[in-house]
Amino acid sequence: MRRHVIGVMGPGRGSRALEDAAFTLGRLIAAAGWILLTGGRRTGVMDAASHGAKTVPGSITVGVLPGGPRGDDVSRHVDIAIFTDMGDARNAINVLSSDIIIACGASTPGTLSEIALALKAEKPVIVLGASDEAKAFLASSHGEHVHLVEDPDAAIARIRGLGITPGSPW
Amino acid sequence: MRRHVIGVMGPGRGSRALEDAAFTLGRLIAAAGWILLTGGRRTGVMDAASHGAKTVPGSITVGVLPGGPRGDDVSRHVDIAIFTDMGDARNAINVLSSDIIIACGASTPGTLSEIALALKAEKPVIVLGASDEAKAFLASSHGEHVHLVEDPDAAIARIRGLGITPGSPW
Amino acid sequence: MRRHVIGVMGPGRGSRALEDAAFTLGRLIAAAGWILLTGGRRTGVMDAASHGAKTVPGSITVGVLPGGPRGDDVSRHVDIAIFTDMGDARNAINVLSSDIIIACGASTPGTLSEIALALKAEKPVIVLGASDEAKAFLASSHGEHVHLVEDPDAAIARIRGLGITPGSPW
Amino acid sequence: MRRHVIGVMGPGRGSRALEDAAFTLGRLIAAAGWILLTGGRRTGVMDAASHGAKTVPGSITVGVLPGGPRGDDVSRHVDIAIFTDMGDARNAINVLSSDIIIACGASTPGTLSEIALALKAEKPVIVLGASDEAKAFLASSHGEHVHLVEDPDAAIARIRGLGITPGSPW
Repeated sequence: MRRHVIGVMGPGRGSRALEDAAFTLGRLIAAAGWILLTGGRRTGVMDAASHGAKTVPGSITVGVLPGGPRGDDVSRHVDIAIFTDMGDARNAINVLSSDIIIACGASTPGTLSEIALALKAEKPVIVLGASDEAKAFLASSHGEHVHLVEDPDAAIARIRGLGITPGSPW
Repeated sequence: MRRHVIGVMGPGRGSRALEDAAFTLGRLIAAAGWILLTGGRRTGVMDAASHGAKTVPGSITVGVLPGGPRGDDVSRHVDIAIFTDMGDARNAINVLSSDIIIACGASTPGTLSEIALALKAEKPVIVLGASDEAKAFLASSHGEHVHLVEDPDAAIARIRGLGITPGSPW
Repeated sequence: MRRHVIGVMGPGRGSRALEDAAFTLGRLIAAAGWILLTGGRRTGVMDAASHGAKTVPGSITVGVLPGGPRGDDVSRHVDIAIFTDMGDARNAINVLSSDIIIACGASTPGTLSEIALALKAEKPVIVLGASDEAKAFLASSHGEHVHLVEDPDAAIARIRGLGITPGSPW
Repeated sequence: MRRHVIGVMGPGRGSRALEDAAFTLGRLIAAAGWILLTGGRRTGVMDAASHGAKTVPGSITVGVLPGGPRGDDVSRHVDIAIFTDMGDARNAINVLSSDIIIACGASTPGTLSEIALALKAEKPVIVLGASDEAKAFLASSHGEHVHLVEDPDAAIARIRGLGITPGSPW
């Protein structure tokens, strides 16, 4: 039976605070019974979110990787690796495969592309920890579909507010 | 922790015998503790294999779909849907993401493309139920990397022969 | 011999002013002897830029389309249609295949994704007609690699300033 | 105005005879006023076909490459390079973007995947120089849509027989 998938996107190199938030997000997503989807690499926000999720027994983590099975350094916290060998074009797949996207920051190019692709695909986007300039820009252009939050608990509350609740049928 | 992924590929419309074989393959793959990956649609070999896998408690089925979240008709037996919106180019992802590919038949264009892409990616390919002409062709060109079998039990035996055993670390 | 390729990106529905600018950009790009690459559809900025280019004898226009040969409505001003059938993931190809990207506006999701993917690929991006909020955001995060301009002539001057001159060897 | 595009596919390392045939194919395609599309690399059939085409004044060659602008070794005979960074998934784009596909040989995995993807996309496929086993297999499964030929002149005659004539409107 289809399971709800929450995507957590963010830089391969984030600040300590952003990676801590990603770890907590992963843990809370797994605790709610949702599947965590990330970019799958062994670095930054992807790795931290997957790590957080795998502290929860029975959790499932999916990584959609930019490289192939030989080239990519897969996070040890990813259960299921999807190798696209498509580089950044795989960002489109991450977004389409997630019911809701949580972007950790908005300024690094990869994360910004995922926010933009999510808006194009009409997926709800929750942005955590955006800069003031990013907030002003996103609010001016896409205010209805972008949800700005400051911490993981607020992100999870938004997911529930969008109608995805633990145990809800897909 | 990374889980072994076995890909089962085959036509969206197969013969009854081929779909029965796919159902059994799915069941045996899940029973071995491996994750089943298919093309994810609600039809043919993809649907039958996923259905077979979901008769096993605790199984996980992944579907990598050619369409997007609105367009594609996802098998009810898929737990995790990866929406590529890439059409047949997604066949390359199916192949790269599977440790071993089992092709049910070799003559329909989609399945043939997956056999060819698997050979290009240097992945082992097990072909079940190929026609005589397909067997002769594959043996003449790619004999070392293509394993021809006639039934699901033989396919599973080949997977183990290739070193992927239930419970083996990735 | 490799020809220089200039990508012009922008919304399928733009303002009249933006489409007029795209037409002029296409004309100036073709007049300089560069190949024009767009998203290829028969609408908005893509169509206008291709139309402008084809007013110049001997020009070549390439369209990299999101759909397949049956589904997409190709601009009549495209000489060479590349059908990806990859939806918005084709935005990554547009960016990688262009020496320089000119974005007409920055706020629509598709164009924003192309700006972001271009930055990720370390391609120079010229943004024409951005809103004040977009300018402030892009300047704050990516000031070095984003060139903000207000009209087509300034965009062409920037291309030359970046070392791509008419007749320059690739 | 849309131009007819003929795709020539074949191994990165072919026999001398196959590369000679590819060179002649490229020359004849260009002489007919059609655009040549290949996989774009500086090797094998791709390079030979592009080279042949560029002996014809006014010809246009397009290469759709598996890598990105930094990684790939582009044929010097390619005018327009489309960088996909998608590895072998780009084979699907080559096929969709060609009105007709000519495969030089059928046994190498990459070329076989292009034949299969072309059949899936319902594009006419002309196969030049197939082995006896490949001929028997393709005839048994896909006889209606695969045209087996032995030399470049016969391939060009088939293209015209399929209704694509020099100067014909798209």
